[in-house]
Formats: sequence, C-alpha cells, structure tokens
Amino acid sequence: MSGNAIDAEPGTVYLVGSGPGDPDLLTVKAKRLLEECDVVLHDKLPGPEIIDRLPEDRREDVGKRAGGERTPQSEINERLVELARKGKSVVRLKGGDSFVFGRGGEEAEYLAAHGVPFEVVPAVTSAIAAPAVAGIPVTHRDHASSVSFVTGHEDPTKEESAVDWDALAATGGTIVVLMGVGRLPDYTKALLEAGMAPETPVALVERGTWPGQQVATGTLETIVEARDEAGIEPPAVTVIGDVAGTRESVVEFLQNDYGAADGGE
Amino acid sequence: MSGNAIDAEPGTVYLVGSGPGDPDLLTVKAKRLLEECDVVLHDKLPGPEIIDRLPEDRREDVGKRAGGERTPQSEINERLVELARKGKSVVRLKGGDSFVFGRGGEEAEYLAAHGVPFEVVPAVTSAIAAPAVAGIPVTHRDHASSVSFVTGHEDPTKEESAVDWDALAATGGTIVVLMGVGRLPDYTKALLEAGMAPETPVALVERGTWPGQQVATGTLETIVEARDEAGIEPPAVTVIGDVAGTRESVVEFLQNDYGAADGGE
Repeated sequence: MSGNAIDAEPGTVYLVGSGPGDPDLLTVKAKRLLEECDVVLHDKLPGPEIIDRLPEDRREDVGKRAGGERTPQSEINERLVELARKGKSVVRLKGGDSFVFGRGGEEAEYLAAHGVPFEVVPAVTSAIAAPAVAGIPVTHRDHASSVSFVTGHEDPTKEESAVDWDALAATGGTIVVLMGVGRLPDYTKALLEAGMAPETPVALVERGTWPGQQVATGTLETIVEARDEAGIEPPAVTVIGDVAGTRESVVEFLQNDYGAADGGE
Repeated sequence: MSGNAIDAEPGTVYLVGSGPGDPDLLTVKAKRLLEECDVVLHDKLPGPEIIDRLPEDRREDVGKRAGGERTPQSEINERLVELARKGKSVVRLKGGDSFVFGRGGEEAEYLAAHGVPFEVVPAVTSAIAAPAVAGIPVTHRDHASSVSFVTGHEDPTKEESAVDWDALAATGGTIVVLMGVGRLPDYTKALLEAGMAPETPVALVERGTWPGQQVATGTLETIVEARDEAGIEPPAVTVIGDVAGTRESVVEFLQNDYGAADGGE
C-alpha cells in the first residue's frame, strides 16, 4: 500500500477501532487494513485475541514506554506523523471505538494540523457490546429512552469533576460507565445522593467478549459488594438502570459463548 | 446450518446489527452469518448497499406489510419463533446496533419466553459512526466528557415526553439524536430553553456512510435553517455540542469517501 521513500507523498493514517475484543467483532474494513497496512500502532486495550494475531514485524506497542509509564499522547501523535511522512500506511488501533473516549479526535486534529491525510474507521464500542453479549440492551422501550456514556476514571468527589452525576441521574436513562471498576463506590454514592433509587439494577461486565468474560449483578446499593465477591477487575463496563434487570429473563437462552465463570456465557 | 424438520431442535436466532450502512462496516461475524444463515428478516434501515447484496430467496422484508403500514413488532416476534421452530438459523438484521433503539431487547425477551436460543451480534452504531466519518468525535478531552444518545421521534412538547431535555442539557456532554430530522425545531428549542448556549455547534449527518452522505453544520440557533438549505432528509443523525465544532479543523484531510455533495466526503 505504500512506498518507502522519504520524499514520497505522505501515507494515510487510519484511526481504527478494534471493537470490544472478539476478533469476529472487528469490522470487515478494520480486518483488511490490519492485514494490508505497513505498520500498526497499538496499546493493550484491543485485547490479546486481536493483538496476538498482528504480525510482530509490523506492529509497535505504544501503550507503555521502557520503564512502564504510559507513552504521552504527544509522542504517539509525533510517531504517526513521522511514519506517514515516510510514505507508510499506518493503522492507529484503539480498543473499542477511537472516537469514544479514545483520543481519536485529538489524533485527527494533530494529523490535519500537520498535513497528513487520515481516515476514520468506526468500530463496535465496548459501551454497547459488553452489556449486549451479557444480555443487556442499553435502551429499551419499556425501560430507557436514552443512554449516556461516561468514564469512571475521574474522581466524582472532586469539586471540578467534569462529569455531572446529578444531571446524568436526572436523565432517567441508562448510564454506562467505561473503565469504572475502581471508582464504583464513588459514583454509585454520587448517583444515590442525586436521588436515584437504591434498588436501581446495576451490572458489571468484565472483559466483555474476551475469553474469561465475567458478569456481576446487583443494585446501586449492593453492586460494590457483588464486585468484590465476584472479583471483578478492569477492564470492565458498568451498566446502571432498569435495563440491567432484564438480563435475568433472557440469560438462560443467550448463546453468546464467552468466558466460563458465569455459566455458559 | 440447519435441517427443515418441524420437530427438530429449534434453530438459533441471531440478533444482528448491520452497522451504519457501509458493507465494509459490517462485523466479520455479521458478514459470515448473512452468508450462512437460512433466512434473513430485515427492514429498510440497513440501507441499500447491504440489503441489495442479500440473496433474494433467503430474505424477508418485514419493514412494511402489504398496504404500506409498518409491520407490528408482535408479528415479527412470532415469525422469528416460527422459523426457529422449523429448525432454521435466522438472522434478524437491524440498521445500526440492535440494542440501541432497535427493539433487540424486546425480541430477546420474546425469544427467551418461547424457549428459542438466540445470540446477540453487536454492531457499529450510527450514533457514533455517522458523526465519526464526518470528522466529529462524540467525546473529546477538551470538549465533552460524556455523550448521550436519544431518539428524536418523540414530541418534546408533550407533557409526558420520556426524554428529559433539561437533564440532557445539564450533563454538559455531547447529545446525539437519532431519527431527529423532523423534530429538530422542537428539541433545539427545548435545549435553548434549558439554558444551552445558542452558539452551541450542531451538525446533521444524513445517510452517514451511505452513498450520497450529506453534512450540514450550524448552531442551536441556525441549524434548522441549515437543514432546510442543505435539504437534509431522514435518515440522519444530529450531533449537539462543542465536538461538532471540531470538524472544521480536520475536514480538509479527512479521506472517508462517502457522498459527493459535501466536497470529497
């Protein structure tokens, strides 16, 4: 797909989401680009099933630098431009969808500012897929007419927290928290204080669509205990709202075959 | 994948999302199931690029009944069970993702209640993909730490409207409205009354990833006029929030090649 000359036209950078982790949930386009591109820049979030199939001589792990600290976004941006200017076709592979808490927007801006052509390849977001394969629809005519996605990275007790948990609670819709295992006690407390019913169903889906997927269920009041009993660890998705309660009525006939710990999923 | 005997074990029903419309954005699994299953039940929303490639002898259009009215959900549910009980492997194909305003949850419940095994195949949702291919990330560290999806089908002036536009405005995050061309004047008004700034950027993406994709941009105050000038028609996705304003800085280098009316997209 490209030459190697330094003076060539810049190659294209493809901002590609890998989906939730199951290679079967890659898009047709993502799969083809991973096979055909000159180089793939990735971190760990696409998951082992996808990462381990990438040819080693065409991939760069930009998740961590030597020493174990996270590679700064600025360094990844610069590497994308550097490779493109060598005429390479580059896939920047992110877990889930690049434009949903994936910094794809920042990468697009940096590439455009440096004159590098890019293409966005949307993907299946874990925010929808992890609940789905556990039997939970994020919207439902009887239960939720909206759904909001947030990340759980932030400290909800901070004055300047960018996430308004009061407003999210007031929407009356489903709330899906990405990367929200650690701060589960904080934001469930914030939502209870915002007036959400203590018996609101909550589900945690760990490694959704990965081997060893695990699910824990409870309510706003009991989910922290359920998390600890099930030993749920990151990466996981939290689903808060009445839709989480519908899982029980369908799970017996649900054939999605991930994990083992949770009885046939 | 199945026999035809009436007394056979029931076949599996696959609740499959088609993604936004570009066949390249089908998942690998959806593509395989469409090729291998006994029958596909679909309506028009997957779009012409996907529908037209389905073999005619293995598909049933359940979007409209003779006479032009919409097939009731109950009739579709019954047909799914009937086919599965004949031992057929059935794909129920929806536009976007089945579990995001797609009634997939209702179908799952009906199938489980009738003892029919089913599998969910998550997909790329148009709510993320249509903005993305137009250069708009639904979240961005500098602009939006949450994103909410709603449908524009409902009348926001109804007392009993299930969508709380005040609360959505208060989240401070991006709002994405699906099927929201017709009621654009109503919910932009509701959001202005809820206190959102009149200069909040808004983008409309018609037929995102379909041939003839079109984009119109404006603000909460000007988008209705922009819609009318551009002649935007359903199906379209509305993106409301500062992220919609980032498109301008990247669109020159965006290579996603859909449509013609909007200069190279």
